[in-house]
Amino acid sequence: MQKLKTYVEVSQDSDFSIYNLPFGVGLIPGKGKRVVSRIGEYVLDLEAMEAIGVFSDLDFDISVLRSQYLNDFIALGKNTTIPFRQCIQSALLEENAGQWAKYLSKFALPSDKVEMTLPVQIGDYTDFYSSIEHATNVGIMFRDPDNALLPNWRHLPVAYHGRASSIQVSGVPVRRPMGQIKPEEADPVFGPSRLLDFELEMAFVVGKENALGKRIPIEEAESHIFGLTLFNDWSARDIQKWEYIPLGPFIAKNFHSTISPWIVTLEALEPFRVQGPKQEPAVLPYLASSAPGNFDIELQVDLIPKGGSVTRVCRSNFKYMYWNMAQQLAHHSVGGCNMRVGDFCASGTISGKEPNSYGSMLELSWKGTRPLLLEDGGERKFVLDGDTIVLRGYAEREGIRVGFGEASAEVLAAE
Amino acid sequence: MQKLKTYVEVSQDSDFSIYNLPFGVGLIPGKGKRVVSRIGEYVLDLEAMEAIGVFSDLDFDISVLRSQYLNDFIALGKNTTIPFRQCIQSALLEENAGQWAKYLSKFALPSDKVEMTLPVQIGDYTDFYSSIEHATNVGIMFRDPDNALLPNWRHLPVAYHGRASSIQVSGVPVRRPMGQIKPEEADPVFGPSRLLDFELEMAFVVGKENALGKRIPIEEAESHIFGLTLFNDWSARDIQKWEYIPLGPFIAKNFHSTISPWIVTLEALEPFRVQGPKQEPAVLPYLASSAPGNFDIELQVDLIPKGGSVTRVCRSNFKYMYWNMAQQLAHHSVGGCNMRVGDFCASGTISGKEPNSYGSMLELSWKGTRPLLLEDGGERKFVLDGDTIVLRGYAEREGIRVGFGEASAEVLAAE
Repeated sequence: MQKLKTYVEVSQDSDFSIYNLPFGVGLIPGKGKRVVSRIGEYVLDLEAMEAIGVFSDLDFDISVLRSQYLNDFIALGKNTTIPFRQCIQSALLEENAGQWAKYLSKFALPSDKVEMTLPVQIGDYTDFYSSIEHATNVGIMFRDPDNALLPNWRHLPVAYHGRASSIQVSGVPVRRPMGQIKPEEADPVFGPSRLLDFELEMAFVVGKENALGKRIPIEEAESHIFGLTLFNDWSARDIQKWEYIPLGPFIAKNFHSTISPWIVTLEALEPFRVQGPKQEPAVLPYLASSAPGNFDIELQVDLIPKGGSVTRVCRSNFKYMYWNMAQQLAHHSVGGCNMRVGDFCASGTISGKEPNSYGSMLELSWKGTRPLLLEDGGERKFVLDGDTIVLRGYAEREGIRVGFGEASAEVLAAE
Repeated sequence: MQKLKTYVEVSQDSDFSIYNLPFGVGLIPGKGKRVVSRIGEYVLDLEAMEAIGVFSDLDFDISVLRSQYLNDFIALGKNTTIPFRQCIQSALLEENAGQWAKYLSKFALPSDKVEMTLPVQIGDYTDFYSSIEHATNVGIMFRDPDNALLPNWRHLPVAYHGRASSIQVSGVPVRRPMGQIKPEEADPVFGPSRLLDFELEMAFVVGKENALGKRIPIEEAESHIFGLTLFNDWSARDIQKWEYIPLGPFIAKNFHSTISPWIVTLEALEPFRVQGPKQEPAVLPYLASSAPGNFDIELQVDLIPKGGSVTRVCRSNFKYMYWNMAQQLAHHSVGGCNMRVGDFCASGTISGKEPNSYGSMLELSWKGTRPLLLEDGGERKFVLDGDTIVLRGYAEREGIRVGFGEASAEVLAAE
């Protein structure tokens, strides 16, 4: 990869190197919500960069930078957003410092001065179930260890529609849900979930629509993806167990999901593209592509009890996914379902082969039978009130790092 | 009921009597999309009614009447929308003809001059499964005739999240979906669905939000419901059968849904309120209410082959619902899920006890084993290309009729 140098101070381990330049929406003091980017510890006010001429070679309606959400910016299309991001990068390069560095204080704000908000107005949200390790673990625990994967699993990327309204940005606390729980050998009772769980996922944001009735061919699928975030699909396992047959999870999942505020573009992730696992049996032609469709992104989950120490409970990787994003999108639209700019598609829990790579407490504690030991001496089967769960993710190669920041939320007691 | 007389000509069997006055969004020639109401064969231009002073006693931002969708109007709240509708009614009464009838040509347009569009920007869409007859029929056909209802069914209103983007207004043709189908004893194949079906449903539109983490008590649930439409939840049974375990239907349902363009308010339906079926066992307190929560609405489905005669394939009634709308909404929000203005919640297929009251071809033809005879001599197991499916619904009592118009769509061949 070509080495780039910037005149902005960026620490070696920052997620937000000159190679990243993700997009988000931040509340800028005195201005309100603005479309922003980030480098190191600075949030970049793109409206301010526009005002000094950073994007003067591009033709677009600058009102998209003053929008409450990224949708209008994304809808400009990659023909605009790719050169737009290149303009940001160019303005931050050491070789162009003479022209732009004098304006740094005008367009770069300390990140602790900018509150990040939900980046996208989400139309529809879909959750896939595309990690073979996760699906196998769940199958072993709840169905048949000898036939853990259901017959359809290797033929299509299983998915269900989720709830868009309750997707929240990192930092918004999650309230433990109330619901129906069925004790063994007794009638269901109403009460707070006792088996609250996180799910380590990533999500992609749709960047280009398809018309109703027109499917997206797999070769074109990635051109419909704008970028990715971290995604914590909070789940109430006891509520889920009682409600989910035959139509899937509902109350168990619709109370809250947490995303990271920065959308990392597919272009920034390009250097980290890798081949995914071999798919056996061969998939149907509408899902087949020889191009590597996975991305090598290290993932971590930290659990922090109130006032306690950090325990890293999981290390996983996005490259483990059996079904990749292009396959997910080709399948999602195969019957003619129209995708819209800003739709979210999450991966499903991302587990690896090793027990410490499992992406949920359900798997890490194996249904609560193997409590996890915490750094400060406590233990956990599931998530307790006061615990904060932090998802992190980054790609790194040849000293170049592109990361996602974090998706963090503290658990509040049920009401 | 108090008898009302209007100076507008309205036929006795019109769905759009002076008692109805539903809301929608219509494309008015020369003006664009406007919030409209309807009486008899006339669409009422509410901006024009405002201009002549019909709503002069009310305080609201009239820009809501020029919106592309009803959301901003609905968000005014029932404290405004109820008197607003009463103002329309008052301006149409014979006793007030002296003041208003002279303006009729200004605010009333022949309905064939106004194209009705999707009335609401739908945030999230949820589909319930609340007809005990439908759930029982499906259980008998696909699972165990002796245990047709699953254990959770009588304890909670089973539901799943659906796809909002593909909900279309009446008149938009539906394209037969492609997808994976699994023949017996063979690998899955890719092709057009051969078992395309309609589902006769009604849907309610959320009129008032609740905050994330705050559930809606059942006593308050109806105050969060603005009104209802007809809803055809198009389904591909062969795709559904292969994909739906364990997370519910996906491609089988997300290609298209058809709604009627007029939202009939809960207030207009009040005279038709009835007690629902007895619920055994007793439901948990958060779902319990002694108030009658069902509505006596006659429902019909017509199948019209291309160039052929009309066959009425189904007569059902909304009053059959085991779980009512207040229960559905109390359950939906019980874990803290935030509902937003414009969200849709559909009932699930509404079947009655009699075989001709079943709300889907799946049940009417009993999985294709009992083909339906059509008026023009043909027969149907499922829906064929060129068929038009028309849903209708109306409530009637003491000569007073409040109806929904129709939700109609023609089936196009797969692409």
